[in-house]
Amino acid sequence: MTRHYNFCAGPAALPTAVLERAREELLDYQGRGLSVMEMSHRSPEFVAIAERAEADLRELLAIPDNYRVLFLQGGASLQFAMVPMNLLSGGGSANFLHTGIWAKKAIAEAKRLGYPVHLAASSETNGHARVPRQEEIALAADAAYLHYTANETIGGLAFDYTPAARRPDGSEVPLVCDMSSSILAGPLDVSRFGLIYAGAQKNIGPAGLTLVIVRDDLLGRAAGGIPTLFDYQALAEAGSMVNTPPTFAWYLAGLVFQWLKDDIGGLEAMAAINARKAEALYTAIDASEFYANPIAAANRSRMNVPFVLADERLDEAFLAESEAAGLLNLKGHRSVGGMRASLYNAVPEAGAAALIDFMTDFARRHG
Amino acid sequence: MTRHYNFCAGPAALPTAVLERAREELLDYQGRGLSVMEMSHRSPEFVAIAERAEADLRELLAIPDNYRVLFLQGGASLQFAMVPMNLLSGGGSANFLHTGIWAKKAIAEAKRLGYPVHLAASSETNGHARVPRQEEIALAADAAYLHYTANETIGGLAFDYTPAARRPDGSEVPLVCDMSSSILAGPLDVSRFGLIYAGAQKNIGPAGLTLVIVRDDLLGRAAGGIPTLFDYQALAEAGSMVNTPPTFAWYLAGLVFQWLKDDIGGLEAMAAINARKAEALYTAIDASEFYANPIAAANRSRMNVPFVLADERLDEAFLAESEAAGLLNLKGHRSVGGMRASLYNAVPEAGAAALIDFMTDFARRHG
Repeated sequence: MTRHYNFCAGPAALPTAVLERAREELLDYQGRGLSVMEMSHRSPEFVAIAERAEADLRELLAIPDNYRVLFLQGGASLQFAMVPMNLLSGGGSANFLHTGIWAKKAIAEAKRLGYPVHLAASSETNGHARVPRQEEIALAADAAYLHYTANETIGGLAFDYTPAARRPDGSEVPLVCDMSSSILAGPLDVSRFGLIYAGAQKNIGPAGLTLVIVRDDLLGRAAGGIPTLFDYQALAEAGSMVNTPPTFAWYLAGLVFQWLKDDIGGLEAMAAINARKAEALYTAIDASEFYANPIAAANRSRMNVPFVLADERLDEAFLAESEAAGLLNLKGHRSVGGMRASLYNAVPEAGAAALIDFMTDFARRHG
Repeated sequence: MTRHYNFCAGPAALPTAVLERAREELLDYQGRGLSVMEMSHRSPEFVAIAERAEADLRELLAIPDNYRVLFLQGGASLQFAMVPMNLLSGGGSANFLHTGIWAKKAIAEAKRLGYPVHLAASSETNGHARVPRQEEIALAADAAYLHYTANETIGGLAFDYTPAARRPDGSEVPLVCDMSSSILAGPLDVSRFGLIYAGAQKNIGPAGLTLVIVRDDLLGRAAGGIPTLFDYQALAEAGSMVNTPPTFAWYLAGLVFQWLKDDIGGLEAMAAINARKAEALYTAIDASEFYANPIAAANRSRMNVPFVLADERLDEAFLAESEAAGLLNLKGHRSVGGMRASLYNAVPEAGAAALIDFMTDFARRHG
């Protein structure tokens, strides 16, 4: 068996220790004679798995008691619809920070559904090379919430602060954040947010699971005519089991949370590791004339590092040689080209080091 | 490692051979150095897995070329909303056959969303002990489609024929079927249907995947203002990859399809096995004064066999002793009580035989 270094932007690398544990239990979970996949979601065994996962996540992120944790389906893209369908039924506008492709998709979905949209700030004019500063953010007078994307997976642009969400009159509105590609990369002050959501397939677990962390007072705002499975309150009341949840993905997420607690030592430790990986790679890029990343230093993502080669005619060779060297999935997103190294939690420091060594060697040979 | 017989109604037993194959490949898929869970859904490796799964399913069910196969999230319960949101935007009413708890949920969701609903027939008056006969079904003049539940997982009631879906004037409307708990139990004439959907967690794979088989002419009917991920046409055009699909569940479904083809020998063979399992169990129930099942012979489900004990005070002992004997998850649904043995594809004939032996012995000791 071989495990290569996997820099995929998502579905992304999972900790080898988590996959080993899952493999060990795959046909027979702790002597029960069946797989977790084969358990009723209402069985005591699965309920214990589900509750343990939530408890570990609450501990890792220090989630306050007045927040509910939901384990859902549909990905961040379904949240693009669910958020306005829950939070705008009382009127008002959805306010957005536009920072790249994922923010744009969230904005487009709210518009598609016919909701009033207000662009509170955009980094489009600077080519999404830096995030809007707090003083550049201007909410509408009727803002019902402010939505932003903490980390743009494709652009490699990350917020280095948590925006305040205030209307012109100073009143505060809920802050909603798509944290798909940065949640669990480090500690987080959940109390600053009204709602956080994240597709699992980067730092949480396999694709097919979506995490939502929502403040109690934002439940029960949905209008009556939306699908039952869109109603955060119905989902919260049923413990994310209005219908059968993605049980195996939930279990795997729980194993990832245990790994973060026990093997890594919590999110402070994880953040330190992530900082070292990213700093090493950006330093190598900046020190080279061969590689380049356009993002302002303060807003460089620690999770997704896009970079281009000085001569794009070398892209193909770079990809072929890196793959042959066991460095997988370095191709940039099809919409932007170039390269992208995603350094999620499960990518070890040795993986980042191996990538840097390869890049240095490649530049020497082709530069 | 122990593998017990698992009669869970869902998430349900998976073939041991499928789980063994998944275990073998879990950390390193065919020497690629990563798990299927860690692959980009747009990578050549995963696209090959996804296409193979669809091709095998098409072969198993002989799906005509003018039908699209979608691999989605959200379960049958999300289809309760998606179907009317796609098929009723041109007006008309949703017509239903009411045959039990799952049909009722589908009806309730269409009503919740504000669509006109017409009950074309109901088995409520006979206690859902037999399905409506064709001559009892009366569609509305403005019927846009007829929805029914092929197999009621909780009630153990199954259709023994495919209803015709005709308005009073004789014009045909699309037939929509929830096949969550009976798909792949045997051959199927897909051409009779406009749309078939099924949650995966019975005969297809793990929870978190939903299969939709939809006729081409029913695409593109959705109104503009529904979520992108609800639009069958958008999903079909993107090959079920508008956003990241549940890749690992899709892969496992593919392994189940391969098992059906290669290990079982196709759906005719599967149907014969399922018939033998169910017949043996119903025969044992009918031969006993100790066990009873109330469903009309022709409509008894081959997948879900609910039964009651002559004395419900023995329920607890039955459940404790059966579990101790390695016969898992025989408790009936919390809404109806009693027992339920689900005999999905992955439950082997030896499992049904072991259950019957246990039941006979239990009746002898307690009868």
